[in-house]
Amino acid sequence: MERIDDIAGYVEDLARAAKAASRPLGFATNAERQAAVRAMAAALRSQADAILAANAEDMTAAEEAGVNAGLLDRLLLTPERIEGMAAGLEQLADLPDPVGRVLEHRTIDCGLDLSKVSVPLGLVAMVYEARPNVTADAAGICIRTGNACILRGGSIAQRSCVAIARVLADALAECGLPHEAVSIIETSDRAATGALMSLRGVVDVLIPRGGAGLIQRCVRESLVPVIETGTGNCHTYVHASADFDKARRIVMNAKTQRVGVCNACESLLVDEAVATAFLPQMLSELAAAGVTIHGDAVARAAATDVLDHFVDATEEDWGREYLSMDISVHVVSGLDEAIAHVNRYGTGHSEAIIAEDAEACERFLREVDASSVYANASTRFTDGGEFGLGAEIGISTQKLHARGPFAAEALTTYKYEIRGTGQVRP
Amino acid sequence: MERIDDIAGYVEDLARAAKAASRPLGFATNAERQAAVRAMAAALRSQADAILAANAEDMTAAEEAGVNAGLLDRLLLTPERIEGMAAGLEQLADLPDPVGRVLEHRTIDCGLDLSKVSVPLGLVAMVYEARPNVTADAAGICIRTGNACILRGGSIAQRSCVAIARVLADALAECGLPHEAVSIIETSDRAATGALMSLRGVVDVLIPRGGAGLIQRCVRESLVPVIETGTGNCHTYVHASADFDKARRIVMNAKTQRVGVCNACESLLVDEAVATAFLPQMLSELAAAGVTIHGDAVARAAATDVLDHFVDATEEDWGREYLSMDISVHVVSGLDEAIAHVNRYGTGHSEAIIAEDAEACERFLREVDASSVYANASTRFTDGGEFGLGAEIGISTQKLHARGPFAAEALTTYKYEIRGTGQVRP
Repeated sequence: MERIDDIAGYVEDLARAAKAASRPLGFATNAERQAAVRAMAAALRSQADAILAANAEDMTAAEEAGVNAGLLDRLLLTPERIEGMAAGLEQLADLPDPVGRVLEHRTIDCGLDLSKVSVPLGLVAMVYEARPNVTADAAGICIRTGNACILRGGSIAQRSCVAIARVLADALAECGLPHEAVSIIETSDRAATGALMSLRGVVDVLIPRGGAGLIQRCVRESLVPVIETGTGNCHTYVHASADFDKARRIVMNAKTQRVGVCNACESLLVDEAVATAFLPQMLSELAAAGVTIHGDAVARAAATDVLDHFVDATEEDWGREYLSMDISVHVVSGLDEAIAHVNRYGTGHSEAIIAEDAEACERFLREVDASSVYANASTRFTDGGEFGLGAEIGISTQKLHARGPFAAEALTTYKYEIRGTGQVRP
Repeated sequence: MERIDDIAGYVEDLARAAKAASRPLGFATNAERQAAVRAMAAALRSQADAILAANAEDMTAAEEAGVNAGLLDRLLLTPERIEGMAAGLEQLADLPDPVGRVLEHRTIDCGLDLSKVSVPLGLVAMVYEARPNVTADAAGICIRTGNACILRGGSIAQRSCVAIARVLADALAECGLPHEAVSIIETSDRAATGALMSLRGVVDVLIPRGGAGLIQRCVRESLVPVIETGTGNCHTYVHASADFDKARRIVMNAKTQRVGVCNACESLLVDEAVATAFLPQMLSELAAAGVTIHGDAVARAAATDVLDHFVDATEEDWGREYLSMDISVHVVSGLDEAIAHVNRYGTGHSEAIIAEDAEACERFLREVDASSVYANASTRFTDGGEFGLGAEIGISTQKLHARGPFAAEALTTYKYEIRGTGQVRP
């Protein structure tokens, strides 16, 4: 990477050029945008060698820096992974067009013709971490929806991300759309993210995709509106009326099917009326799967067979998103305490009740304040694909604009178009 | 007002109590919320004397402090204005319920039943300035939509706002809903607004209603998501194909019908091809109405009869929202320059083209990036009532969540409710 002295100026110039490019892109037809995304896919395939070469440099540098195996795996590109990126772009091309929908249409009293029409947001910033394939996902969804994008990959993936973005931007230009509509910040200086976050009015939305540290930095510092994603301290609550087999199967799935994801279960709540009947076998199954149990005193009493997998929970455990083979276990007096606990410690992501009592299920569904609330199912279903939304961008834990899994439509806004014949306001 | 030492603690306690109150309010039925809003209207009428007495104290203090006549008028309450507030609440009661709508419903592959349902946001903060009647508007729209509110009126209106809020909260409590769901900050200490803006996770949205200074402070400092409202540097662009009579009538309406409002015209753009034909009579009409013209060199040449109402425009004029009998006038080379100028200096509020050429109108409607774009009509129509949206909360100049005039629906979000029979993710 070349050294850049004036980081803020560099980022602002890049963003302003991308914003200018967003205008012709916003007026491109659906067919033009579809063709562009397909051309981007083809270019990834034809330029795979150059991308793999850049990735090999990132891998060497990361190995030399002693980066851990999990991160190295996320960083690695292979011919198969590049094919996956290309196929993902082709799927985006096939999505229904979210732009230009007439959301409302009416003639108002004085004869004015009023249409509310969906339009692209303009310039979308995506800030992400080690996975270079996010570059293609992010650029593809933006171009498909008529938005320009400015991308900021993680420093260990810089060469890979820049190589991918250049291939995509060149393909766009060959389709007659502006090269600058896929822009990437080509420095790993941390100040660049700060500069990006200050560009309110130029950047229309900033979407961080990554760990809690990145997301919280954006939420706290950004003047550009942020869509907050990803943190999930998800609970599964076993009500006194629960079918124990069902409950155990759901908890095991929600906790262990995949542990590093935001919709995994991090906390188990159990009604005290059934704690001694339900917990021993549940905790044994968790322990047998290699899960460490962070439990309260009642859980400890039920964990006598698996004390080697048990630690006493502290207040801090109730608020933790482990993203690992750990679970907190808390016994509650009943539905009221369960709902209060979830609303206090949850992150508004995904929450589940296991109960045969329909009234208890309906109260939990209604009173828990989260994007996705389940009765008798695993929280692992919270996903744009599972919900039938198409290509998921992320899972929003905020309430404004987009909540829960969100897709292409969240990259649009609307405008009112009003056609008159000389009307003035009386 | 009593003195409060720990402002941040005071505001946080108030907000947490209001948030707790938001839960029962969120589960109240439509009929219960309607009855509550009607009871609030009745209480304003029956307690009018107490409110007028508090307002008289505010008026006396403001007069002694030398507050200007315009501000005093906004501060003043009369029996008629209280009746207006009560009638406004009754209209809110009659609005269709925006809560509990099933926005989507589907059964997903594994048999899960998925519903996307509209729900209240939770706790809404409104920060406003001198007009005490905003207290009733804001509380009414929040209760109608199942939200609790925390209000922060301007310091000169403190006694009036607190008196109104107490009457409303008492009426709510008499309906069996929590008193704390209408909470008001009872100190004029400026630090209270800062404390409110820091309560991310407790306050769900902050809506500032007032001047540009207040709004920009919220946008820059708030960690709570803000709906940015109100600033309107609105343009009217007279294309070469314009009908001059229509153009003059629209410009006079947009500029002079009411000058202190955000949808008033602040800038006139004219194609150079028609500048010498169009401008002299236009500028004379503006001058005759008492408007000061901030014009460029071409405008000056057309203003020879009205030079006493003319000043040379500086670059700064193109970005100004005068909110007064002032207008900037700029001659452009044609449609491209007009669109670029509007997109550069506009605030994304309301923009108009006057043209008989339909293609020019359609390009302007499509390419101008603003909430409300007009062909051949006055920008003064940008209003929730005119657009048929019901009770307007404000006019958003941002793109996320709500754009343009927004009403009750903007105080809702949605959740996914998923009903299963033991499903786990494969």
